[in-house]
Amino acid sequence: MQEVRTILLKKSVYEDNDREADALRQKMKEKGVRLVNVMSSPGSGKTTMLVALIGLLKERFRIGVMEADIDSDVDAVTVAKKTGCPSVQLHTDGMCHLDAGMTAQGLRALEDDLDLIFLENVGNLVCPAEYDTGAALDIVILSVPEGDDKPLKYPLVFQKCDLVIVSKIDALPYFGFDLDRCKENIRLRNPHAAVIPVSAKTGENMEALARWFIENK
Amino acid sequence: MQEVRTILLKKSVYEDNDREADALRQKMKEKGVRLVNVMSSPGSGKTTMLVALIGLLKERFRIGVMEADIDSDVDAVTVAKKTGCPSVQLHTDGMCHLDAGMTAQGLRALEDDLDLIFLENVGNLVCPAEYDTGAALDIVILSVPEGDDKPLKYPLVFQKCDLVIVSKIDALPYFGFDLDRCKENIRLRNPHAAVIPVSAKTGENMEALARWFIENK
Repeated sequence: MQEVRTILLKKSVYEDNDREADALRQKMKEKGVRLVNVMSSPGSGKTTMLVALIGLLKERFRIGVMEADIDSDVDAVTVAKKTGCPSVQLHTDGMCHLDAGMTAQGLRALEDDLDLIFLENVGNLVCPAEYDTGAALDIVILSVPEGDDKPLKYPLVFQKCDLVIVSKIDALPYFGFDLDRCKENIRLRNPHAAVIPVSAKTGENMEALARWFIENK
Repeated sequence: MQEVRTILLKKSVYEDNDREADALRQKMKEKGVRLVNVMSSPGSGKTTMLVALIGLLKERFRIGVMEADIDSDVDAVTVAKKTGCPSVQLHTDGMCHLDAGMTAQGLRALEDDLDLIFLENVGNLVCPAEYDTGAALDIVILSVPEGDDKPLKYPLVFQKCDLVIVSKIDALPYFGFDLDRCKENIRLRNPHAAVIPVSAKTGENMEALARWFIENK
């Protein structure tokens, strides 16, 4: 076996938007609005999950949705059509993440009398974790086909989240995904994150997920 | 149904590393080395795919591998152990992509007598597409569980690639993935990209994939 060398590459400049994010969080708190930042890889089923979840929550809360995408508007149209909730599409024009300023632009375009707003971040496990959007809750969706090792390979997004939704568990028999190992990998990164495995397709455990949002509103 | 508004967010500063990438590409060409940049989402099975592909190519080429990851070295160790090829792990220290300067750092750490070098970029469909690494060939792996709409939602990475490998086709019966629609979505972005559907798990079509690399060496 060949020897493996590891090289640490230099990081380039960061923009710090923490102050703007804190101000936005405070403002939303004063208005009684809960902003939830949803992060995941492309193709983890964020939109399908949101539609199913909103179905279980919309009698209780006035819900709005912001869908960030690089260059399409299919998600906001889908969400608006399937849930009837006010939805805004945020085009990032190639950008790989949302920051607090972008989030604030989106919020200004939404209705003003909402209790709960879901922000579907750009599909990306890396950059969205580095920019505080100003949300009160940060959530990661990890889908079964991506593998149970992702918390080891994309540490920051798991470190900073309040909840990991393990999605597409209907596909568990098909992939070599070990749910216990996944939970252990998440715990290594973040002992405080809740972990809720669900299937939006079959509805399995979706009620438990809805309860988490009611308890954390 | 609610009306959906679309908001164009402003893009921030770009670093341009095109000149450095062109110089690196030229240098590799003069040395007779083919550098292949492999991009995909987290969990698309890049490493498994590379191990299987290298198994089919290593009698013909002297192959090296650079594995970029934010914070782990599991991939380089796996590749070295399973293929016997020289492998280097590039830690990006939180960065979401590789640029030409980072790629050059990795190349200096590899052996000097190679014909074909695979660079496994950070798992991310957004940022790696924006930075030219200096590779001669750019490849995207799109796995079936991610969905056939990804070329519409992550346009740039599909626009700039020479080949799309549609992976995990053994999972086609399980997911609502339409291979023809996927090919059509890729063609909309990039009529010149080759599309090769494979399963590294069952070996289906892996020989055709290996042939593509032999023809494009």
